[in-house]
Amino acid sequence: MGQTNTIAEFSCPTLLPAQETILLGHGSGGKLSAALVRDVFLSTFTNPELSKLNDQAIVAINGSRIALTTDSFVVSPLFFPGGDIGLLAVHGTINDLAMGGAQPLFLSAAFIIEEGLPIGVLRKIVASMQSAAQAAGVQIITGDTKVVEKGKGDGVFINTTGIGLVPDGIELSADAARPGDKVLLSGSIGDHGIAILAQREGLEFESTIESDTAPLHTLVAEMLRATPGLHCMRDPTRGGLSSTLNEIAVQSRVGIELEEAAIPIRDEVKGACEMLGLDPLYVANEGKLIAIMEPQSAESVLAVMREHPQGHGAQIIGSVSDTDPGLVTMRTPLGTTRIVDMLAGDQLPRIC
Amino acid sequence: MGQTNTIAEFSCPTLLPAQETILLGHGSGGKLSAALVRDVFLSTFTNPELSKLNDQAIVAINGSRIALTTDSFVVSPLFFPGGDIGLLAVHGTINDLAMGGAQPLFLSAAFIIEEGLPIGVLRKIVASMQSAAQAAGVQIITGDTKVVEKGKGDGVFINTTGIGLVPDGIELSADAARPGDKVLLSGSIGDHGIAILAQREGLEFESTIESDTAPLHTLVAEMLRATPGLHCMRDPTRGGLSSTLNEIAVQSRVGIELEEAAIPIRDEVKGACEMLGLDPLYVANEGKLIAIMEPQSAESVLAVMREHPQGHGAQIIGSVSDTDPGLVTMRTPLGTTRIVDMLAGDQLPRIC
Repeated sequence: MGQTNTIAEFSCPTLLPAQETILLGHGSGGKLSAALVRDVFLSTFTNPELSKLNDQAIVAINGSRIALTTDSFVVSPLFFPGGDIGLLAVHGTINDLAMGGAQPLFLSAAFIIEEGLPIGVLRKIVASMQSAAQAAGVQIITGDTKVVEKGKGDGVFINTTGIGLVPDGIELSADAARPGDKVLLSGSIGDHGIAILAQREGLEFESTIESDTAPLHTLVAEMLRATPGLHCMRDPTRGGLSSTLNEIAVQSRVGIELEEAAIPIRDEVKGACEMLGLDPLYVANEGKLIAIMEPQSAESVLAVMREHPQGHGAQIIGSVSDTDPGLVTMRTPLGTTRIVDMLAGDQLPRIC
Repeated sequence: MGQTNTIAEFSCPTLLPAQETILLGHGSGGKLSAALVRDVFLSTFTNPELSKLNDQAIVAINGSRIALTTDSFVVSPLFFPGGDIGLLAVHGTINDLAMGGAQPLFLSAAFIIEEGLPIGVLRKIVASMQSAAQAAGVQIITGDTKVVEKGKGDGVFINTTGIGLVPDGIELSADAARPGDKVLLSGSIGDHGIAILAQREGLEFESTIESDTAPLHTLVAEMLRATPGLHCMRDPTRGGLSSTLNEIAVQSRVGIELEEAAIPIRDEVKGACEMLGLDPLYVANEGKLIAIMEPQSAESVLAVMREHPQGHGAQIIGSVSDTDPGLVTMRTPLGTTRIVDMLAGDQLPRIC
């Protein structure tokens, strides 16, 4: 598949026929999601901020740069090794703000609860949200509760929407990667997705694989302090590292070349992926970030990241080129190169 | 029931036992909702802004007063006379901002879609949201899409979260009603709830009853321009006029005395309520507001409201007293007085 096809495919997806129905893959974070977003949402909610396809929108209000981001969480099961839906909801929204360079300030929390949910379960989730918010220094200031009949929901779905303040001079965007830039990854990939899958399917590994759910805003703040050379940040959640990098490659009209050997993956996760036939490049993460930045200060930013608890496994995993815009490729340890495409369908539904 | 009981009941609800489960009534906007909010959410997400129980939180960011509000919409059916879930989602969030005196600026939109939903249905809803947003002068700037398996959702649930700017000097709050204030209502009540119920149950009336869904921010702006004497505004959605006024009476520690004859109810709605055994005071509205304000300028504000398309049916429906704090009472046309309590269970589930 050449570069032109890839860009065309992403920018102008085949129009979804009107009679088509929603598939689980439309929620995957991969190709079907991208087509749905472009064909149904972007074509209707036309505005320049939305079409940047960043994790957050940044608007000027009274001279301040305010970031807004929203996420609904439908993860199943509600509790899993390393976290729960509440923790995920708070961290996910904090991280989407942080990826725009915003200081996360305030969150809303809206609950859609299925009739019959034990109130004790709700209490546990709410307590988890509050402790995550307090630990991260954000406040949950407004909320909403709806109840649907048994069989019309699934326990509880949570929407968290967040606002933050973007300091002047910070410009991070998925369309800002430049040829020559380095690609940094803050740590090992695949932990969250495998933790959920193992819990859901009752799989047992030698050691428990825990979700990596974590707030990344203090790591981002350290990185921004260390250099003015950051161009783009994203957290590779649904669709994994590959889908996130594909989006950046398309939005920035650049090629991204990865070094497979440099991508950190924990042995247990690698083993679980092999056993389950999954590619860790497509497995969701909830406490990792990708940074694309000018090469000069990449090593010094890497050193700063490794000093931070959320970045001690950071690596430079590749670079940005002007060949093959829109395409992500990976050099294998054997020296061959393969295309790292976007996820086509849905590898793991309801991962977040 | 005396005043003390009512306040105690609302302020310190019986603790929900840990083994209790969520009932549909927990989403009603009435007593069960209030108990859930206080017992599970307010006791955990402790902060002064949330505990005001306004429709929106207002926080200072960089010297600007930013309002934040969130609402999830789970209305069934998705389409009904006078509107659809998309229209409701945009209007509802605009109105929650407006009730704090905020100029609505930006919305997020997050969709939880059930596998199998025809994409044509989604397109129609999204188009409806965009036209409502454009008509109201707000922009949908960020979004999210999740998909759940068939049987784990119900068509589509939508969360809209909005941010707005509150001009200096505006202080509207549910705890700001003062004895002597007048209670204004912008028009007839019960239309939305009856429209949904009729559609859901396939009921036919002589003329179709349409939802009153409408954005109220321009009406609020006119009212704020007309007087500095507004103390509190709320839109009586879930739980209807009675639940909203009960909340204000408790938050402000005042009594509210209504004149039954002054409350506008359309004949068709009155007839439908009689037939169905519903009390229109508890039926949801989606395009009406209650204003509580100083008496001197009440008549002039009423005149301003009646000039506005969303306020032409406005009436002064009662006043605020210092007797019976926490209690809402109503004088009937026969001259007797009855207590207007909060809704206990759920009269009409999934109305918004």
